[in-house]
Amino acid sequence: MQSTMQDFPLTIAAILRHATTVHGDRTVTTATGDGFRHTTYREIGADTARLANALRRLGIAGDQRVATFMWNNQEHLTVYLAAPSMGAVLHTLNIRLSAEQIAFIANEAQDQVVFVDMSLAAQLAAVLPSLETVHTVIAVGDGDVAALVESGKTVLRYADLLSRESADFDWPALDENSAAAMCYTSGTTGNPKGVVYSHRSSYLHSMATNVVNGFGIGFGDSVLPIVPMFHANAWGLPYGTMMAGADLVLPDRFMDAKSLIQLIETQRPTVAGAVPTIWNDVMNCLEKDPGRDISSLRMVACGGSAVPVSLMQTFEERHGVQIRQLWGMTETSPLATLAWPPPNVPREQQWALRATQGRPVCGVEARIVDDQGAVLPSDGESVGELEVRGPWITGSYYLGRDEAKFADGWLRTGDVGRIDALGYVTLTDRAKDVIKSGGEWISSVELENHLVAHPAVLEAAVVGVPDERWQERPLAAVVIKDGADVTAQELREFLADRVVRWWLPERWTFVDEVPRTSVGKYDKKTIRARHADNAYEVTEVRD
Amino acid sequence: MQSTMQDFPLTIAAILRHATTVHGDRTVTTATGDGFRHTTYREIGADTARLANALRRLGIAGDQRVATFMWNNQEHLTVYLAAPSMGAVLHTLNIRLSAEQIAFIANEAQDQVVFVDMSLAAQLAAVLPSLETVHTVIAVGDGDVAALVESGKTVLRYADLLSRESADFDWPALDENSAAAMCYTSGTTGNPKGVVYSHRSSYLHSMATNVVNGFGIGFGDSVLPIVPMFHANAWGLPYGTMMAGADLVLPDRFMDAKSLIQLIETQRPTVAGAVPTIWNDVMNCLEKDPGRDISSLRMVACGGSAVPVSLMQTFEERHGVQIRQLWGMTETSPLATLAWPPPNVPREQQWALRATQGRPVCGVEARIVDDQGAVLPSDGESVGELEVRGPWITGSYYLGRDEAKFADGWLRTGDVGRIDALGYVTLTDRAKDVIKSGGEWISSVELENHLVAHPAVLEAAVVGVPDERWQERPLAAVVIKDGADVTAQELREFLADRVVRWWLPERWTFVDEVPRTSVGKYDKKTIRARHADNAYEVTEVRD
Repeated sequence: MQSTMQDFPLTIAAILRHATTVHGDRTVTTATGDGFRHTTYREIGADTARLANALRRLGIAGDQRVATFMWNNQEHLTVYLAAPSMGAVLHTLNIRLSAEQIAFIANEAQDQVVFVDMSLAAQLAAVLPSLETVHTVIAVGDGDVAALVESGKTVLRYADLLSRESADFDWPALDENSAAAMCYTSGTTGNPKGVVYSHRSSYLHSMATNVVNGFGIGFGDSVLPIVPMFHANAWGLPYGTMMAGADLVLPDRFMDAKSLIQLIETQRPTVAGAVPTIWNDVMNCLEKDPGRDISSLRMVACGGSAVPVSLMQTFEERHGVQIRQLWGMTETSPLATLAWPPPNVPREQQWALRATQGRPVCGVEARIVDDQGAVLPSDGESVGELEVRGPWITGSYYLGRDEAKFADGWLRTGDVGRIDALGYVTLTDRAKDVIKSGGEWISSVELENHLVAHPAVLEAAVVGVPDERWQERPLAAVVIKDGADVTAQELREFLADRVVRWWLPERWTFVDEVPRTSVGKYDKKTIRARHADNAYEVTEVRD
Repeated sequence: MQSTMQDFPLTIAAILRHATTVHGDRTVTTATGDGFRHTTYREIGADTARLANALRRLGIAGDQRVATFMWNNQEHLTVYLAAPSMGAVLHTLNIRLSAEQIAFIANEAQDQVVFVDMSLAAQLAAVLPSLETVHTVIAVGDGDVAALVESGKTVLRYADLLSRESADFDWPALDENSAAAMCYTSGTTGNPKGVVYSHRSSYLHSMATNVVNGFGIGFGDSVLPIVPMFHANAWGLPYGTMMAGADLVLPDRFMDAKSLIQLIETQRPTVAGAVPTIWNDVMNCLEKDPGRDISSLRMVACGGSAVPVSLMQTFEERHGVQIRQLWGMTETSPLATLAWPPPNVPREQQWALRATQGRPVCGVEARIVDDQGAVLPSDGESVGELEVRGPWITGSYYLGRDEAKFADGWLRTGDVGRIDALGYVTLTDRAKDVIKSGGEWISSVELENHLVAHPAVLEAAVVGVPDERWQERPLAAVVIKDGADVTAQELREFLADRVVRWWLPERWTFVDEVPRTSVGKYDKKTIRARHADNAYEVTEVRD
């Protein structure tokens, strides 16, 4: 028996049609530093068609890659829409990667055209000569393009380009499984790996952002993606907001706390998304200037690294803003789990559940497995590597790289943790950072969390280092606060009250700062390498 | 370039997995007349597996049809889940259809097994001998099965059947485009026509019910589908509620206003769905008994026929309950449009927008076309037939019936109306009921709405009848309230203040009641036939 339903493809073009018709009067606002500029989805739709015409004229055909090197702004949004809807593939370049990584990525993806914000022109110009397949650079905004021209590439202005084109484009019929966009992981091990999103996966992920159990975006909202459009699709907020017909507020490059508070106060978004660091900065800024008002926000999505409960509590109690922790990665589009308690849960337990990475939104399935790949129970106690699957989870990397990350239809996330009976996921470590001591696992992150709770400690990173007897043992690299004083012995005693005895590090080093990756996470690979090179002065403390 | 995303099918089984694991402790409540019985999704999952084992044992294989003749209760839910998830096709029989229609439908669909609530056993027994392909009847609940046994079919008890089976079932991998469920239209013209939903369409429709701009169901909710599971999938609420991990409250056959109020007061659902008649009864009942509390409801979905603004206002002002009008049909799964105003709209305009059929939820696209199929502008003025398309809209009928309803990838809904610039659809008539007078269209529904506003009128139906000069002219069939008195001349003068002159009916008939279809709509075909047979005494009034 055949289904009688229409064979209707889920595409970015369908989101574009919906937003530009039913919600055509809703606005897109972009920060300009000294103010804001506004447009509507109807106008964005016209510019998107102009841009598609321009890209065709520049020779973009088939599924060629169209790259961006841009902040969150309305022009970036038109590339987000035009490239996939015309059948090409959007490739967002992460401006925070090294020049070498950017060149590797752009060359592997064979990018043809790059859109660049003029505020990033110097940074792109430095790497442009290494971008072998790029023939054209499209400069967005005013300013001197001389540095870009030096590369020998064709350099065009976005505004000029659009001014010559028609606001009608004959959008092609596309297979929903065809490539829509690609994004590279910013993994610290080896070269970045490409994830290629399909129209289908992007559409379904957008629906998930509109679902109440997801971000819950509806046309009553105004959404502020602070998380960059060059990294993990700004958590799907641009497409999701357009699908919902909500207003979109874009901070461009003005992402310091003061600018963000000004933006929130004047543009009154109801939903925002950013990493904890940003909200921490905003909180500190609000403490110094308590008259400011961010209460238009009803919900703030927060992820990228673990969200401190104290941050969530401060926002809720002082500013009436709910922070919802979420977890995901480039490979998961990224919305995978979201931490919100069910109704009728006592207040104390609510905070415990909100401190987890959350539970899978419908569409995503999660499980934990042991070293041998055996599935462990979701009992809140068993610890293993998190695996996920679903229609917006990647099943391979571009060009088949790193096949070991995929098994039996599941993505091996490289995150280690546990799942409770109601699906709440608590991640305790990256698999590569877990310290394997005598066959048992020690969580480096839990040790770090306890260490930073010590009043003298500013930062602390814990890594596994080789040990003759136990294979690996923890090394703690600690940054002491200005003017504070503490010994390894004292810190070890501090920890002894908080973790099991065999977790206590014997090796301690005091450093000026913890090395970080391009996205601001602790660079544990570098710490381990420095330790192997004897670059650290290590104090050994045993009982 | 290939997408790297997982090839993950959207299936009912995926909804089942999500609800029974992540939301396994949420409850399903069924009314029993003198109380309520409760179970959990975890238990529903176990029963669903038992049922799938039982159906396999009864020989259900491949995509054979499994029919239900049931109210909204937990057993019906297990058939909703088991049949599609095992690869079979759920076929919900509409108990309100005539015996002839039920036999036609079950035979055309080649139903193998029928589940029947014992409270409906007598009704099914009457038609059972005509169900040629049905070999087994599964009786749900207690009571004498003798009448069913008389048919010569095998008769089994649901509870006995499940008690013998394992709570594990090896669910097959299914193509998301395979058939999951079927439902017949209850059209008054010709035989009912079959719509075959796919797993994909059911899954996407469920997501739409979870989307904020849809029903907005999340795991904070408790959902009461009063709209029957035997008609248009109870508006997708059973699957949608499970996908959301919300509680489900099922009224079984106890759908009188008093029982519903009792249910709402004690079980405290937050979302409910029913046709206007039901809410009208509830409103009248609450007027007589103002101490009752239905304020647990935050949102009530209402559709199936136009929702009077007065009903919405009463619910909101007296009971704090929002009624949201929606429009859809069996062919649209059914959620297609939903009437909710954008933010920042003045209060007066809000009611005007809420009185429309609403605008398309993302996924559904709508347009109006004229007699020749030319697309008309969405300008709020042009009137034409509504066409819709999308991933949960049907593209044909089972066995290719009534091909004229489908053109160019769009479903011709048979509804006539207009669309405004923001997508709000206002339906004024069924295409077959529009009165075509001298090349122009007169809306029968608008005339009816004005007539029932007259204090002496209880009901009024207007149909087009043949006219020598104008091709068609309106005939008004009016039911006068008990004790009231009014003449055709007076009603015509009443209308003259409200519609354009050439709409005024010349032909009037006063009747005891307006004939209705099986689903309670005015049966205009019968009215026209009775008029043609001179069965009505017609008063002619001209100026």
